[in-house]
This record gives sequence, C-alpha cells and structure tokens, in this order.
Amino acid sequence: MRSNRLEAFSDGVLAIIITIMVLELKPPDGADLGALWDRSGIRLLSYLLSFVYVGIYWNNHHHLFQVCERVDGVVLWANLAQLFVLSLLPFTTSWMDDQGLKAVPVVVYGVNLLAAGTAYYLLEHAMARIPGQGERMREVFGQTLKERGSLVLYVAGILLAALVVPWLGLAVFAIVAAIWVVPDRRVERYLAALDRETS
Amino acid sequence: MRSNRLEAFSDGVLAIIITIMVLELKPPDGADLGALWDRSGIRLLSYLLSFVYVGIYWNNHHHLFQVCERVDGVVLWANLAQLFVLSLLPFTTSWMDDQGLKAVPVVVYGVNLLAAGTAYYLLEHAMARIPGQGERMREVFGQTLKERGSLVLYVAGILLAALVVPWLGLAVFAIVAAIWVVPDRRVERYLAALDRETS
Amino acid sequence: MRSNRLEAFSDGVLAIIITIMVLELKPPDGADLGALWDRSGIRLLSYLLSFVYVGIYWNNHHHLFQVCERVDGVVLWANLAQLFVLSLLPFTTSWMDDQGLKAVPVVVYGVNLLAAGTAYYLLEHAMARIPGQGERMREVFGQTLKERGSLVLYVAGILLAALVVPWLGLAVFAIVAAIWVVPDRRVERYLAALDRETS
Amino acid sequence: MRSNRLEAFSDGVLAIIITIMVLELKPPDGADLGALWDRSGIRLLSYLLSFVYVGIYWNNHHHLFQVCERVDGVVLWANLAQLFVLSLLPFTTSWMDDQGLKAVPVVVYGVNLLAAGTAYYLLEHAMARIPGQGERMREVFGQTLKERGSLVLYVAGILLAALVVPWLGLAVFAIVAAIWVVPDRRVERYLAALDRETS
Repeated sequence: MRSNRLEAFSDGVLAIIITIMVLELKPPDGADLGALWDRSGIRLLSYLLSFVYVGIYWNNHHHLFQVCERVDGVVLWANLAQLFVLSLLPFTTSWMDDQGLKAVPVVVYGVNLLAAGTAYYLLEHAMARIPGQGERMREVFGQTLKERGSLVLYVAGILLAALVVPWLGLAVFAIVAAIWVVPDRRVERYLAALDRETS
Repeated sequence: MRSNRLEAFSDGVLAIIITIMVLELKPPDGADLGALWDRSGIRLLSYLLSFVYVGIYWNNHHHLFQVCERVDGVVLWANLAQLFVLSLLPFTTSWMDDQGLKAVPVVVYGVNLLAAGTAYYLLEHAMARIPGQGERMREVFGQTLKERGSLVLYVAGILLAALVVPWLGLAVFAIVAAIWVVPDRRVERYLAALDRETS
Repeated sequence: MRSNRLEAFSDGVLAIIITIMVLELKPPDGADLGALWDRSGIRLLSYLLSFVYVGIYWNNHHHLFQVCERVDGVVLWANLAQLFVLSLLPFTTSWMDDQGLKAVPVVVYGVNLLAAGTAYYLLEHAMARIPGQGERMREVFGQTLKERGSLVLYVAGILLAALVVPWLGLAVFAIVAAIWVVPDRRVERYLAALDRETS
Repeated sequence: MRSNRLEAFSDGVLAIIITIMVLELKPPDGADLGALWDRSGIRLLSYLLSFVYVGIYWNNHHHLFQVCERVDGVVLWANLAQLFVLSLLPFTTSWMDDQGLKAVPVVVYGVNLLAAGTAYYLLEHAMARIPGQGERMREVFGQTLKERGSLVLYVAGILLAALVVPWLGLAVFAIVAAIWVVPDRRVERYLAALDRETS
C-alpha cells in the first residue's frame, strides 16, 4: 500500500490537534493588557510550546514519508497510536495551565511528550520492517541519535519537575523542542543526492 | 467518477470526529493523580475505545477504496450515511461517561456501533453494485464473515448491557475492536499478487 | 489555475462544518431514553437535516469541479462566499433548536439556506465565465432548473414559517433536501459519454 | 522537497481556523430579530472580517505555491509561524467582541494582523532563498508593494485605534481586507504566459 492517504489523514488529525488548543484560550474579562496577561499570558506560552511540538511531529512525519512510501497494516496502527498520544496534548497542556504549573501536571505533560517520542520511535521501526525501507532509512536517518537523546531528556525533565521544581522540567522540554526546530538537513541532503543520481 | 475526493472528504470528517472527543476531556480541578483519575480515568478509557473504533473505520474505508476506485451518486450518499453515524460517536461516548456507564447509555452506544457496522455493510454493497467492482471485492474480501460476525457481537453486547450488566456489554464492544485491530491481510495479499502479475 | 487546492480547502471547511454540529449535541442529564429524547430528540433531527444539506453542497461542489477544472480569482472568492454562508448553518440550526422551532429562528434558518443556494448559483456563474467552461456546463447541467426551483421553494418555506406555522416551513426545507438527495445523473451520464468518446 | 504536503497541512489548519470562529457565535436567548442583533450582530460582522482575512491568506498562500514548488526546512517553519499567528485570530477576534470594541483589544487585533502580514513577508523571503525561485517570484510578484503597503496601513490602524477611536482602526483593517479581496491578476497573467510559451 502507498502512503498518500495515511499522510492525508494524519495531516487532518495533526491540523486539528494544533488548532484545537486555541479553543482553550478564553479571552480575558477586562479590556486592558494586564487582564490579557493575567488570564492568557502563561496559556499563550504553553500553547506556543505545544504548537511547536505538534509542528515538530508533523515535520518528522513529513520527512519520514518523504523517504519511505510503502505502508502496511502494522504501520497504519503505529501511526494511529502516534496520533492518539498527540491528541492528548491539548488536554495535558490545559491541565498544566489550569493548575498554575504544579508538579504533577507538569510531570504528566512530560509523560505525554515521552509517550509521543516513543510512539514515533515505534512508527520508525514499523516502517523499517517493510522490505527495502530499512536500509534506506538507516542511510538517511543514521543512528537516530536525536530521537533517542530526546527520550532521555524527557525523562530528565520529568524527574526535575517531580523532584526539584516544575519550571525546570518545562525548561528542558522547551530545550528539546528548540533542538528539533533546527531544520533536519539529513532528508534534504538525501533528496538532493537522489536528484543528482537520477539526472 | 473516481473516488479521490470522496476519500479526501471522508479523511477530513473522520479526522475531526476522532479528535473532537478530546474536547470532552475536561482537565481535573486538583493537581494530583487522584484528581486526574477521578475526573478523567474512565473518560480516557472510553475515548481510547472510540478512537480505536474510528481508526478501524478509517482503516476499512482505506482498504475498500484501495481495491475499488469507481463511485457513483449512491456510493456518495452511502458514504455520507456512514460518516453521519460515526459523527454521533462523540455524543454517545460522552453520554455514557457522564452517566457512569449506566445501562441505557451503554445500550445506545452499542446501537451506535451497530448502526456504524450496518452503514459500512451498505457502503460495501453500494460499491459492489458498480460494474466490475463486485467480483474484485468478492475476490479480496471473501465472505465478509468478519463484518457480519461483528454485527452479531454488537447485538450480543447490547443485550448483555440491557439485561445483565453494562460493563459486560462494553467488554464485548472492546473485544470486537480488538478483532479488527489485527491488521487485515486480505487487501495486502491482493495488492501484492497484483504487483506480481503486472511486473 | 487548476482547482485541486480549492477542492482540498473546501473539503476541509465542509468537513468541519458538517462535524461541528455534533458539538452542539449536549448529552442529556438523565440515564434513560426519555431524557435522551427530551434533551436531544429535536436536535438530532435538525442536525440530520443540516448534515444532509452540507452533504448536498459537498456533492454539488464535487460534481461541478468534476466537470470544470479551471478557476480564477473571482471563483476563489465566490467559493469562499459559499463556504462562509454554509459556516453559519451550525449557528442558525442551534438557535432554531434552542428556541423550540419558533417562527423567527426558522425564518432565519430558511434565509441561510436561501443564501447558500444563491451563493452556489453565483459560484456556477463565476465558473461559467471562464473560457471553454460555459458551454460544457450548459451541456452537462442544462437549464439549472433544480437550482432555481430550490430558491423558489426556500422563499415559499420562509413565507410559510413566517405567516402560517414554523413546522410547515421546515417541512418544505426537508422536501428540498430530499429532492437533492436523489443522485444527480447528469454528471454521471456526461462522464460516461466522455469515457466512450475517448476510448 | 516538493510543497504538496505543506499545502495540504496548511489547508487543513486554515480550514479549521476559518470555521472555529463560528463556535464563538452563541445563539441569542430570545426568538426575535432584536435578540439576534443584540447578541450576535457585531460578532457576525467581526467574524466576517476575520473570515475574509483568513480567506486572503489562503488565497495568497495558494498563489505563492502555485508559482514556487520547492520547499526546505526553513520554509516549513516559516509556514508554521504563519499558521501559528493566524491561529490566534479567533482568540483576538473574540476578545474584541466581548469587550465591545474597546481600544486595547482592537489594538491587539491589529497587532495580530500586523504579525500575520510580517509572517507572510518572511515566508516569501524563505521561499525566495531557494535556488531558482527568487527570480521567478520577483518576475511574478514584482516589488511586493501591496504586502509592504498593508503593513504600513496596519500600523496606521493600530495608532488610530489607540489614540483616536477604536472604530477608526477597525475601518482601516476592513479597507486593507477590501484591497486584497480584489483578485490578484499577477499570478494569473504569469500562468497564462507560461501556458502560451509551453504550447
């Protein structure tokens, strides 16, 4: 099976997840900037963080299916698991905000990020199982150091939030996001090389 | 008429249905895990069940239009009927949760699943009516035992929920979901055979 | 410009409009069928009617762009006007339900349907302005009697709701929907003839 | 990388943003036209303005990727920044309405429009960086006078809303929208010329 429709469906779900969080932003009651900041300041920042995370997953998803185009039943469900975990992000973001960045909600938010990272890792493995795709993925994505390093950093952030102070955990999650925002040249290099070969 | 746009529209509607249910998950008032479980525990589980069901329908829809590509006006409306029935799932899921899994709401949830299964059955028939597609579908999907068996199990679950205890009905619905999650090899075998023939 | 992306964007907007209305269906407070009917009975019926209407517009849109594929700036805005008018349907449906089918809300619902029909009429004209498409559309869609007849029926329904009794207006709107649900053979005949010519 | 999936994802997000604002339209409590106007009159007008703005961005986005088809990692994030800024529009629109068009909320709405215009400007630059696309964009879009003129008008509107009267600022924003609604012939001329060359 080719991946076009899986991509279209995932685009739809990710587009909804990324925009649904705006619905959580309730306008402040007053008409001045103080009211805006009190009511929506932290929410805007955490919405930005979650928006960036969903953007990162969309980017990675896009890169992955740019390189590999064949899917099977296992990939379909690995992909749905990925989407399910990401769909919980508006909920965990919202809880974290409502409670003013207390320890447990920040930990749960971190667990959500960790689960999303793990699901992506499994999706990559499901894709690599399909004949011919494993070698190509290893060639393009290499040792997946970034993927595995992120999982370690999520655990570090969760522990910091639980044992030291919630803000510190959030800072780690923001750093991981920043690492991923830097565009991933691996796929572009691969596609450019492919272009050169075929021409 | 080719099916591309019907698929794109259905992907959009299914993507929204599957994500709309997260909006029903209201964050708990407390900042500890007990509050999370009390407020959202059962909702998370039933959200997962409904998510899996919509995922199953998306998968089946995907498989069906992978094999057959021609649609007509009857198929367009059979497809809209399928989408309408599925769009009620967030509503019936929510009612079931609000009422703490009482008998009537669980029965109504089961009726919703039964209607979705029936609509899919009708959609398959509408597709099979189009010249050339009936034989191919019989070849690929065989006796549609799984489809018809599920309808029987939904009825069994509804009766158990109504007459014995609601939880038992829900367990049957979860079992049907599990049966479908196991990837359906029929389509993959067919496409692989097709690949071999054409090459 | 080709129409693919206009179609994709319209599919997205129509998919959201058609599913957003489920969010208006609040689960009843009780756990029995009486509570379900009292709280959601009429809402379910009017949701069904609006769902069918959006489905009709999606079908017509689909048929139109199946026959004609070239768009320009005027068509882009005619299409956005169509989408804007349809996006008000969840709002007018909801008001009608909240007020228990009183005269004014039913009239406003009818005006919304009338505006949607008019917008579609304008969209057809904008498409027919593009060189080469006018003749083909006249060939396929003929006198657009159905389109113009519907506008007359909407006006009749609005007058009946305003001057006689709201239910009667709604019945007319349901009849117009039923007329459109009957699949439109014009496009299928045209595409079949085209197939025969090219082969 | 080709732009198809970036376009599909953006279509999804823009479709959701444009329709999410209908959810803010709460039906009035009474069943007469006075209640409709009191409760929803201004909201309908500002919904229309924001709808037109998102429509403009969709149109521009459509035109831009009609002319240029190659994207890279920087473009992906410039595009996500554009979508993020636009996703705040339902929030800022809603705040402006809730507060009855007071100065600060209208200014914040203007800042949102200014940020959206700036993000689009950056997106164009990110696209022009890609080899071969810069010249073609200059050829088609020329001096981008319209883009830069709009930014100046947004600033003028913001100052008028802050220092004179909010309504005046809104009027300027409506005028900018009207300027953009006039279809942009530049892209159509370019595509027509391209057609003539290739044939």
